[in-house]
Amino acid sequence: MRRLAVLTSGGDAPGMNAAIRAVVEQGLHHQIEVVGVQHGFKGLVEGEYKKIGINDLSHAIRRGGTILYSARYPEFREVEIQKKAIKKMEDEGIEGLIVIGGDGSFQGALALTKLGFPAIGIPGTIDNDIPGTEYTIGFDSAMSAAIEAIDKISDTAASHNRTFVVEVMGRNAGDIAIWAGVAVGADAIIIPEEEFYIGDIARRVNTSLCHGKDHAIIVLAEGVMGVEEFIKEYKKEAPNQSVRGVNLSHIQRGGNPTGRDRVFATLMGAKAVDLILHGQSGIFVGITNEELSVCDIVETLTKSQHKVRDDLYQINRTLTDRY
Amino acid sequence: MRRLAVLTSGGDAPGMNAAIRAVVEQGLHHQIEVVGVQHGFKGLVEGEYKKIGINDLSHAIRRGGTILYSARYPEFREVEIQKKAIKKMEDEGIEGLIVIGGDGSFQGALALTKLGFPAIGIPGTIDNDIPGTEYTIGFDSAMSAAIEAIDKISDTAASHNRTFVVEVMGRNAGDIAIWAGVAVGADAIIIPEEEFYIGDIARRVNTSLCHGKDHAIIVLAEGVMGVEEFIKEYKKEAPNQSVRGVNLSHIQRGGNPTGRDRVFATLMGAKAVDLILHGQSGIFVGITNEELSVCDIVETLTKSQHKVRDDLYQINRTLTDRY
Amino acid sequence: MRRLAVLTSGGDAPGMNAAIRAVVEQGLHHQIEVVGVQHGFKGLVEGEYKKIGINDLSHAIRRGGTILYSARYPEFREVEIQKKAIKKMEDEGIEGLIVIGGDGSFQGALALTKLGFPAIGIPGTIDNDIPGTEYTIGFDSAMSAAIEAIDKISDTAASHNRTFVVEVMGRNAGDIAIWAGVAVGADAIIIPEEEFYIGDIARRVNTSLCHGKDHAIIVLAEGVMGVEEFIKEYKKEAPNQSVRGVNLSHIQRGGNPTGRDRVFATLMGAKAVDLILHGQSGIFVGITNEELSVCDIVETLTKSQHKVRDDLYQINRTLTDRY
Amino acid sequence: MRRLAVLTSGGDAPGMNAAIRAVVEQGLHHQIEVVGVQHGFKGLVEGEYKKIGINDLSHAIRRGGTILYSARYPEFREVEIQKKAIKKMEDEGIEGLIVIGGDGSFQGALALTKLGFPAIGIPGTIDNDIPGTEYTIGFDSAMSAAIEAIDKISDTAASHNRTFVVEVMGRNAGDIAIWAGVAVGADAIIIPEEEFYIGDIARRVNTSLCHGKDHAIIVLAEGVMGVEEFIKEYKKEAPNQSVRGVNLSHIQRGGNPTGRDRVFATLMGAKAVDLILHGQSGIFVGITNEELSVCDIVETLTKSQHKVRDDLYQINRTLTDRY
Repeated sequence: MRRLAVLTSGGDAPGMNAAIRAVVEQGLHHQIEVVGVQHGFKGLVEGEYKKIGINDLSHAIRRGGTILYSARYPEFREVEIQKKAIKKMEDEGIEGLIVIGGDGSFQGALALTKLGFPAIGIPGTIDNDIPGTEYTIGFDSAMSAAIEAIDKISDTAASHNRTFVVEVMGRNAGDIAIWAGVAVGADAIIIPEEEFYIGDIARRVNTSLCHGKDHAIIVLAEGVMGVEEFIKEYKKEAPNQSVRGVNLSHIQRGGNPTGRDRVFATLMGAKAVDLILHGQSGIFVGITNEELSVCDIVETLTKSQHKVRDDLYQINRTLTDRY
Repeated sequence: MRRLAVLTSGGDAPGMNAAIRAVVEQGLHHQIEVVGVQHGFKGLVEGEYKKIGINDLSHAIRRGGTILYSARYPEFREVEIQKKAIKKMEDEGIEGLIVIGGDGSFQGALALTKLGFPAIGIPGTIDNDIPGTEYTIGFDSAMSAAIEAIDKISDTAASHNRTFVVEVMGRNAGDIAIWAGVAVGADAIIIPEEEFYIGDIARRVNTSLCHGKDHAIIVLAEGVMGVEEFIKEYKKEAPNQSVRGVNLSHIQRGGNPTGRDRVFATLMGAKAVDLILHGQSGIFVGITNEELSVCDIVETLTKSQHKVRDDLYQINRTLTDRY
Repeated sequence: MRRLAVLTSGGDAPGMNAAIRAVVEQGLHHQIEVVGVQHGFKGLVEGEYKKIGINDLSHAIRRGGTILYSARYPEFREVEIQKKAIKKMEDEGIEGLIVIGGDGSFQGALALTKLGFPAIGIPGTIDNDIPGTEYTIGFDSAMSAAIEAIDKISDTAASHNRTFVVEVMGRNAGDIAIWAGVAVGADAIIIPEEEFYIGDIARRVNTSLCHGKDHAIIVLAEGVMGVEEFIKEYKKEAPNQSVRGVNLSHIQRGGNPTGRDRVFATLMGAKAVDLILHGQSGIFVGITNEELSVCDIVETLTKSQHKVRDDLYQINRTLTDRY
Repeated sequence: MRRLAVLTSGGDAPGMNAAIRAVVEQGLHHQIEVVGVQHGFKGLVEGEYKKIGINDLSHAIRRGGTILYSARYPEFREVEIQKKAIKKMEDEGIEGLIVIGGDGSFQGALALTKLGFPAIGIPGTIDNDIPGTEYTIGFDSAMSAAIEAIDKISDTAASHNRTFVVEVMGRNAGDIAIWAGVAVGADAIIIPEEEFYIGDIARRVNTSLCHGKDHAIIVLAEGVMGVEEFIKEYKKEAPNQSVRGVNLSHIQRGGNPTGRDRVFATLMGAKAVDLILHGQSGIFVGITNEELSVCDIVETLTKSQHKVRDDLYQINRTLTDRY
């Protein structure tokens, strides 16, 4: 193999640049040229191929987002389009592809492999919701950004003795909510994976406030409902609390990646190159028990395949059940 | 004078704790005891008075919010309630009051002074909208928090070649918007003090994107309209742009205060003590030309009394008018 | 059991407060009162016991350092002193002790247990160097602080095309160096666990700079040697490079703990309470494969018992061996 | 005028990139092409001229350091070298030069002007030590970085009840020390502009610790002496304090610029272009009373021309003179 391509697809996630860098540098180490594809699968088909310099990468490793850009491209589900991409790559002498993205993006990698063109995935999504791996690039940074924002909100909440409901990202997964919630000592964490009773939460918060806590934080995963909707219900159950809602929205996505995201992204990027050079494809690189692992791309995802850490959910319930 | 009281009122602002600390320490320096009043004017009337220790203050100086808590209390407009507060303070041997807050809070200080009880204001609000002073405590921190958030959003905006409209705080003033907007190199800044044409902005952004800019940021002051409403209009004028909106909301209020906020808060806090000891009252401590100044509390505020920096608005117009 | 005590000992580590909070809250959940002991084992002997309020804890969870203070107290190795501590606790109705600290501190817990007083450890040290657990509270925060600082230094290094050697903490362990080094894309990482050749490193950096990299970063673990000493040697081998050294020193210790540190500290704190209530003692709570585990306190530590992640060391070698 | 050049010189300062961006964008606005000169005056002579894209600038505005690189080049004091630079620029059709840097760099601009080639300065140095302007680009960011670091150190200082002496930058000026010191509530601030007595400081700190303060911070400007040297003396006078020293060193230089630095850099950059187009040269753009001003380049600098804010020094003395 002499030439590889790498692309990022789906929502951007901090750490993607560290993965790109590792792919390029590991290629260099094996004397393979790595071509960057801009704008994901769209650029793959349209030929947006670009050499990436070591110097750019050495700066990009500490930046959020993706220097290769990403784009939505549902057309890539069509076999004709996939074949067009393969043709384009072959014209450029490219013999393998590494796809950094979420499970939607992995389907593209799998499809190419089935058509005979080797492709490998690297899990990059802040949602941490890819079955098979315990970790996805961007999750730690998104959690950290959420925590930092909630810490700030706590200052205001305490100053006015308020209850703040903070909506965090995660699509259908409660991972960001549950980690951030435990980290800030939230009075309640509401995630799609668990049932909840608003009246119950309101009463628990009331009790804490009565016992002298000067503010309350409720962390709400976006997969449950929007914060406006939640607050409307909540206020009915907690008429004596001064309640405000905040949707952290896109500030969770960007920003410099954390060390953990950069380190795992680096390991995964290098591993993906090694695997494809050893003839593997149609798989993705994951993390199991804090170590690199090789994972199958699941073709038909069901919501139930994702699990949040049960111990985190339990500990929050226990610690906030104070009286 | 042997005993002073200090309170915070209105919305919390980073740096209020530095002002509280300076008041207490300056009191100590003059051998005067400073009593902290919790929950603003409400606590003043209800007697929530509390000794504040030097050690707590030495930690609080670097925290956002207010360790004295704040509260809404429209009842304080009534003279009877004001007299009750004076009675309460006199019972405790308190001979003067320092009020940290916005112009609403200053009216309380002025009212007390008119009833014969000396009170002095310190401008604490993130909005920077108090006529008479060029600076209010919390503004620099709020601007910094907004910038940090927009920097993060820029990562995502660039990764997806999007236009992000970011709503920032400031009530009726455009100060946070204009400073943050210039700082992030926004493609447009929309403030209540200036007219704007959505179609004009959309065309300017289009041109920049066509010339190779990989994303666009529009900063919108809350005093103009909500981000949802703006986006609805904007999309009509920019049908080819991928547009998203974010409301930074409460993450701008909290967080550790910046150096500038802490330093000016410290100067103002100490000055307020000196002034009240020298028999002044019914005024507030402000900043003019970067130096401490003594300002009159304006009784009837009109919107037009506030000015934003015109040079900032102009520079943004000029620099983004590229082609 | 009705009353427990908790103390922090050894160097402070971000996340200790989250562990203290979890101990107190979990105690509350089991209707057990938890007493905070100030200044570590010294305070234990001298009776510095203090009730900790839920409100203080809800703010402390996001702060670095330890609200219980820490102190050196080598005298605690003496059995007489240990007995005195037990007597003191028994006088106060305390029936168990939780010790948050490094392996030195664990020896104190083990000694008390051997004398019949139940004590359990929680690993709190930024160095990540406690055999038996893969994770110690504070490590993620220290790594993050180191990375953030090196990111800043990289700005200057690039502006002047310099090589910066950055000394990071870790005592005899290379963990902070290796994680931070991979995360920043360091050109070399020097740790006590691996041999190194300065001439070799200088040549590799030279090659990268010749190929267009605009700066270089070398991360040096304090366990190897001081940065001044290293630079003296390095300059001899790299006469053409403009070299500067920085010792990150104490800025790595403090600051708000990361999410990961707070979450694991919370899990560990609650678990420690559960274990001691179930009659366990003389052990510590650790992390194995990202899950809580119960670990033996090792009485005679040898340097060789600590391992750094070999995959991290290797990946850095590979990725920087570019040409 | 059709073509301008811009360069950065001397130590890097956060905000320099914002100034570069403003110069380029303002040029664009006036339909003038702006060429970036890499590596300061060295690159000017050696012809390292480069077009800078709008897209790069829109990202650079939020980064520390300088994307144009800087370099030492004492040779530029020679008239022959200066003439060579002018010849080089003229060959490229460049008709004016904007120099971002400290007062050393301004001498280069002045020399070129005297030889008939128009050049204008923009003050970029973290030290805030250029006579004639109240503000230099980078100062606010350096102060902020110092404060953030000292905040972290305070966590550790408090945990161990220690006195930390923190050395900050500023060359011969005490500005960073005095602002950062007031902002963190330092127990003492030591600057080159004021005399100090170590014994006096040690006694004051002792008194505060005796009255219950749980830690102490002394901020030391590098212009006074090194932290090691200071500590040696200090320990003699404070034998009962546990004392540690930290040199913040290069972490103060880098990192994302603050809003204030970016905003003033933007204003200055645009103004410099306007001035040179209006035929001015041999001057620099400064800030007086928070507004843009035009300043003379002082040829023979004397140490005494720089003043620190006396009110800041006084307030720190007063507030820490507690008992």
